[in-house]
This record gives sequence, structure tokens and C-alpha cells, in this order.
Amino acid sequence: MYEGAVQDLIDELGRLPGVGPKSAQRIAFHILATDADDVSRLARALTEVKAKVRFCEVCGNVSEQERCRICADPRRSSAVLCVVEEPKDVVVIERTREFAGRYHVLGGAINPIDGVGPDDLRIRELMTRLADGEIEEVIIATDPNIEGEATATYLTRMMRGMGIAVSRLASGLPVGGDLEYADEVTLGRAFEGRRRVEV
Amino acid sequence: MYEGAVQDLIDELGRLPGVGPKSAQRIAFHILATDADDVSRLARALTEVKAKVRFCEVCGNVSEQERCRICADPRRSSAVLCVVEEPKDVVVIERTREFAGRYHVLGGAINPIDGVGPDDLRIRELMTRLADGEIEEVIIATDPNIEGEATATYLTRMMRGMGIAVSRLASGLPVGGDLEYADEVTLGRAFEGRRRVEV
Repeated sequence: MYEGAVQDLIDELGRLPGVGPKSAQRIAFHILATDADDVSRLARALTEVKAKVRFCEVCGNVSEQERCRICADPRRSSAVLCVVEEPKDVVVIERTREFAGRYHVLGGAINPIDGVGPDDLRIRELMTRLADGEIEEVIIATDPNIEGEATATYLTRMMRGMGIAVSRLASGLPVGGDLEYADEVTLGRAFEGRRRVEV
Repeated sequence: MYEGAVQDLIDELGRLPGVGPKSAQRIAFHILATDADDVSRLARALTEVKAKVRFCEVCGNVSEQERCRICADPRRSSAVLCVVEEPKDVVVIERTREFAGRYHVLGGAINPIDGVGPDDLRIRELMTRLADGEIEEVIIATDPNIEGEATATYLTRMMRGMGIAVSRLASGLPVGGDLEYADEVTLGRAFEGRRRVEV
């Protein structure tokens, strides 16, 4: 145990995800050795993010305005909607520059073990968006794990009969990977989703 | 890239030791989902630690007073001094409850590659403390690695002829460990430092 303020900081840091007691201690001593200006910049970034950032009223992505940059951008297609679990997924997809439509952020995935059901996600908001008929295609880009798959199945069922083209991101071998290191589920999916090559 | 405040926070968090871009992002989203009160408590802990914590004028340990709790405690023996690299080493040794003397925190170890020489450590302050004759024994508890050993050797040479009993913490097999998993250097030290058993 350290004296007051040092221990307080270690305790607070230790509450952050992925920061164990050893890391919290290392960060605390780093803070002690860091310029006071740099530390107050970090402290300010923490409070600013809480004060400024909210969620886009349309898609649920993080935003500093009522509508996020993507929802406010008239060049993005309103006909194609990509449904993701978290704001970070939007960033990852944007980086590919492959998608020119809009997003819908669910805020998680269905996970009965953690007590997350459909009502805890922004599924009702999704249905409202789909109801006005402007969206022609929905790409479900939830994570390729049990929770993501369950969420995708649930969403697919909800959209049945709405006349919307629904697709799911392809599963398969990661590009640049090695067949030897692929797990059997991924390899199974790669077989399942094999593409005919023109010969 | 995220919008303003979120990206600012990710950038600031990414400067912390052991926090990579992925962790910084995860922590930032955790902060977004955390109660504003909890976040301001973390922000306050950061600024408080810089405002309140200084280094003990005697031993160099972290302290909120001019003298740390250990230096200010009259029950601790002034005859035995334990020399460590960092404040966190004091905490580790205190936890053993084996040591009732005082400490001297060097603030690191001699490391020519990183440009840390004897003058960058609190060695002059150590010599001043030893000069007044009250300290009879010095236990060097620097890390059992190259830098710690180099520092221990340097300190031993500095204290030669001062009539002080100097010792170094024992190296050997960790208690509860398995001989099979011991590295050869540790095992070699364990042989070297073997103790006669009464038969």
C-alpha cells in the first residue's frame, strides 16, 4: 500500500478494463514522473469526452453533434445500411473504404449469459429506420462469434418479409494468413463459402 | 479516426506505458460508458497525485509529507538501511514484514545503454546519509538483473573502508517454484549460495 494520493490513483486506474494492479502501479509511477501539464491534458481529455461526446440520434455512433459525421454526410447512400455492434466497428469498416452507405450501431450483441437481450440493443431504433422504406439493403456486420451470430440470426428473422436485401459479412480465411494456423470453424466456413473460379 | 474528443482521449491514453492503441480505444469506450462521477474521480486522482505527492527528502520514496511515513516512524531502526531502485520496491519489501530498518530509494539502476549513470541516481544522497555514522548495515536490494548487479557492485565499491556491513539479497530458487523451470543462472546462484544443513 502506498500513501493516500498514489494509492487513490492506483485504485482508480485499476478499475479501467485491461489494467491490472501491476499496470495500474506502473502507470501511476509514470504519471508521477510526467510533466504536470501532460497529466492535466490527460485529466482534461477524460472530462471533455464525458462533457462533449454523445451518441448520434440516427445511428447510435459516438458523435459531438446531434448527428454524426456519417449520418450528416449527403454523399453517403441512404439505401444501404451496415449494422454493427460497437462504434469501434464503424471505424474499422471506414478504414477499408469499401462501404459508402450508412451505419446502425446496436450498442452490443445479444448475450444471455451477460443478461443482454434484444431490448437492451438499439434494435427498435433499427426497425423504425427500416420502416420508412428508404433502406433497400442491410449488411449485418456483427462479430463472427456466438453472440454476433445470435444477433445476426435475430435481426434476420425480424427483417423477414420487409422486402429488404439482407446479407452477412463473409466468413473465411483471413487474407495473408496461413492455412495451417486456421481453426477448424473458420476453415469449415471457408469451404462452405467457397467461390467458383472461372477456368 | 474518431471525432475530436474521443480521438483526443485515445491519443492521451495511448501515451501511457503498456497501453497500446487497442487498449487506449477500449479504455476510451469504457470511459464513454462510465458514470460521469466516476470519470471525474479518475481525472481528480490524476491531478491530485501531481499536486500532493513529492519525494521524501530523506530516502527519496514517494510521500505526501517532507518525510515519508517510514522515515518519520521512530520505531524503525536507523542502524540498518535497505537500498532499493524504485518506490515500488519499498512496498514489496514492506509486505514481507521482515525488515524493520529504513530505506534509500535510488530512483533507478545504472544502465549505460539508457544513459543512466551513477550521477543520475540518488547515490550522493546515500553517501551523505552514511557519512554521519549512524548506519551500521546496508542491505543492497537492487534487482537481480544486469543493471541491478552493476549498481550493487558500484555501491559496494563506494562503501569500501567505511566500516559498514554491506550485504546483497540472496539469489536462488524461488520458493514454491519447480527446479525443472529454473533458468541456469538462478540454478547456478542457488548452488553457489547453498546452505549447510545440520545432520
